[in-house]
Amino acid sequence: MHTMRRWCLALAATVVFAETLALNNQEISVRIIDTAMADNAGFEKLSYLCDRIGNRPAGSPNMEKAVLWAAEQMKRDGLVNVVTQPVKVPHWTRGNESASLLEPINRPLTMLGLGGSVGTPRGGITAEVVIVHSFEELQNVGSARVKGKIVLWNVPWDGYVRTVVYRQHGASRAAKFGAVAALVRSVTPNSLQTPHTGAMEYAGDARQIPAAAITVEDALLIQRLQDARNQRVVVHLEMEAHNQPAAESANVFGEIPGREKPQEIVVIGGHLDSWDVGQGAQDDGAGCITMLQAAAILKHLGLQPRRTIRLVFWTDEEREFSGAIAYRRWVGDRIKDHVAAIEMDEGAERPIGFGFGSLQENSPVRPRLEEIGRLLDKINAGGIFPGGGGADIAPLMMDGVPGLSIRTSRKHYFEWHHSRADTVDKVDIDDLRRNIAAVAVMAYMLAEMPKPLRLPASD
Amino acid sequence: MHTMRRWCLALAATVVFAETLALNNQEISVRIIDTAMADNAGFEKLSYLCDRIGNRPAGSPNMEKAVLWAAEQMKRDGLVNVVTQPVKVPHWTRGNESASLLEPINRPLTMLGLGGSVGTPRGGITAEVVIVHSFEELQNVGSARVKGKIVLWNVPWDGYVRTVVYRQHGASRAAKFGAVAALVRSVTPNSLQTPHTGAMEYAGDARQIPAAAITVEDALLIQRLQDARNQRVVVHLEMEAHNQPAAESANVFGEIPGREKPQEIVVIGGHLDSWDVGQGAQDDGAGCITMLQAAAILKHLGLQPRRTIRLVFWTDEEREFSGAIAYRRWVGDRIKDHVAAIEMDEGAERPIGFGFGSLQENSPVRPRLEEIGRLLDKINAGGIFPGGGGADIAPLMMDGVPGLSIRTSRKHYFEWHHSRADTVDKVDIDDLRRNIAAVAVMAYMLAEMPKPLRLPASD
Repeated sequence: MHTMRRWCLALAATVVFAETLALNNQEISVRIIDTAMADNAGFEKLSYLCDRIGNRPAGSPNMEKAVLWAAEQMKRDGLVNVVTQPVKVPHWTRGNESASLLEPINRPLTMLGLGGSVGTPRGGITAEVVIVHSFEELQNVGSARVKGKIVLWNVPWDGYVRTVVYRQHGASRAAKFGAVAALVRSVTPNSLQTPHTGAMEYAGDARQIPAAAITVEDALLIQRLQDARNQRVVVHLEMEAHNQPAAESANVFGEIPGREKPQEIVVIGGHLDSWDVGQGAQDDGAGCITMLQAAAILKHLGLQPRRTIRLVFWTDEEREFSGAIAYRRWVGDRIKDHVAAIEMDEGAERPIGFGFGSLQENSPVRPRLEEIGRLLDKINAGGIFPGGGGADIAPLMMDGVPGLSIRTSRKHYFEWHHSRADTVDKVDIDDLRRNIAAVAVMAYMLAEMPKPLRLPASD
Repeated sequence: MHTMRRWCLALAATVVFAETLALNNQEISVRIIDTAMADNAGFEKLSYLCDRIGNRPAGSPNMEKAVLWAAEQMKRDGLVNVVTQPVKVPHWTRGNESASLLEPINRPLTMLGLGGSVGTPRGGITAEVVIVHSFEELQNVGSARVKGKIVLWNVPWDGYVRTVVYRQHGASRAAKFGAVAALVRSVTPNSLQTPHTGAMEYAGDARQIPAAAITVEDALLIQRLQDARNQRVVVHLEMEAHNQPAAESANVFGEIPGREKPQEIVVIGGHLDSWDVGQGAQDDGAGCITMLQAAAILKHLGLQPRRTIRLVFWTDEEREFSGAIAYRRWVGDRIKDHVAAIEMDEGAERPIGFGFGSLQENSPVRPRLEEIGRLLDKINAGGIFPGGGGADIAPLMMDGVPGLSIRTSRKHYFEWHHSRADTVDKVDIDDLRRNIAAVAVMAYMLAEMPKPLRLPASD
């Protein structure tokens, strides 16, 4: 009886909520979805950004062009209060680079220096390779074997989070044992001789040694060469990579001001910077353009929700998050007015719903998000999953802002990201439209719902 | 009743056949399969060929090394009558090559010249690009638009056979309309900025213009650039490609001589040559090594079938089949003693059975092959499919030799083949073992069966 009563109360609450939110907005969400599903302008903007401007490392001339274009485009799409916020960013340049096997065979290797790596001395580094497969194994192999050598982290893909640590920290770990350079097997589930770059970090207590990714193919080649009769493998590595003085870059943001409570903010965004190979199409051109086009469609439909939707393009997500940190600083005390944030940075494959940062099974937020999700059932993008957010909204989430990220099928994202294969053709226009539709509905509803979304703790 | 009687006769025939062939050899085939499924030597030989010798264009020093190694390896594996048959082969060299977009943006393109192409004049060719998607479209576009331009064949993957014709004939078709060079979208279902080379042929009645493959990504980039406001796209192409004088190469063959009828021959083989990028691991290192190891295992098990099994490594499959033609010429009248031929040239993915050249629904050969296939059910490689053979055994099949080829799942073969991604890591050792097992059983049975396999016409 008690249970039954609770169930009835819960049902009643849901029905009331449904009446005030979802039912009232069913017609609006259908209009948003229909408009997004016929949209071509999003794909055209993505093509312009990636094809005409190109990839956009923070601090590069291309990123400067992208910032100017983004601010102009936001205005053209009807956003107001468009701000270009200057941000100092780390500025790393690749220069020429190459690697080759010298023993037991002479053959070029396919490589990409890691972002943040120092270069080699002029003339390069030539050394024997020591292969390791985990931090533990390096420990066991020890300094006597590693000193003066190039360490190859031949770590198979085991999901991004578990594998990427070797790209991030492999060089300093190896340097502590006396290695003169570090190579890392590209962090990807599939390869067609595709090297993947990405950020690496030096520990404060280790010598800074050059670090580069080689392809899965070349890592396995070196492994086979060594395994056959315990062969000595020698590699030559040459990199002009250089950490330049901090450079000027910028975040860009613009708004659809709120109808009733303009001071309350729903942030939506992605990062405008990219790596210096490929086009930064899925990472994260597609995220930026999805968010931009979601806002453009709301404007186009004349939809002005209760609260302000603020579109933010962050800079320097790929290295040190200085864009995200600068935005948080700029927000200051107005953080309390941020009622929600949605980030997109996992590519625009087929969307299945949203991840929500700190979603608990019994969170009161859950039925409210699920109610919005139901509006997206039409395009099968209405799932609500635990775990969400992203690097650029992390500083907001740490201060209590409910953070979401769009969740996609993510079948191929890590095959493309940080590689020359991250190009516009990888973005399916229909999937892009679905992402735009999902974000536009979610952003609109978060900005429109009578009582704002909040984590219970901050209520 | 009539039908019933025929059915009974067919059943009786099958039963008799089963008793004399399959049942008698069940124990032998289990031994072969078990040995193959525990084999490591095949993968080691493949690694040696691909890692230590490398890719092997006909006429290259690497191919010379491969021929010497193959002859030695056949002898080490116990084969006799090892012959190195000299063959004159076309000799094409790539030299330096590059392509780049000049308008509307300046960006390098990822390309590979096509085998057999002439080079550009020193300093390269700079011209506007005309995009076409089919031979018909070129016809419609016509000379006025094509003259002096670079034609890009932006033809989407539609299976290998239907798509590859643009790589083979695109240059001459374009030249007839006055084009100065031809680019072809790489012939592949999937790409990670992966250019695919391959053979092209010049027609006798067209000017020889340079021809290169660009990646799917770059073909789609050019298409997008042109589609956006009907933009003029200009490309610069520079190729040192050169058709050298014919070079010396060789077929290699060796035998397990027949126990009773050594003059009757079952040919098994693949092509030893490869393209000059990647390692030629799936195309066709894996084919050669599967055949070699199948023979090695029969030798190792002391199995000497009734007829001779002849292992043949052909040269120059990738360009002009001069190895296959030379072998056919060498065979001469002894063609009548060739009772069957098995070719493998589609990679060593998971085998599912064998394709048989001219298999009809009611062919009397079918139940005989299916009976052998049943011996391979243990590894799910016993299917018998219509359509089989290959370029290297085609000259034999044209003269009535029953031709088979191993059939695999072929999920990724065309993503790898003719590209830098065709490397040993693409060969799964367990799949290689299954191929070795399937070929060893099929070759042994074809050489052992009391009445040889023959097309009805030649009986």
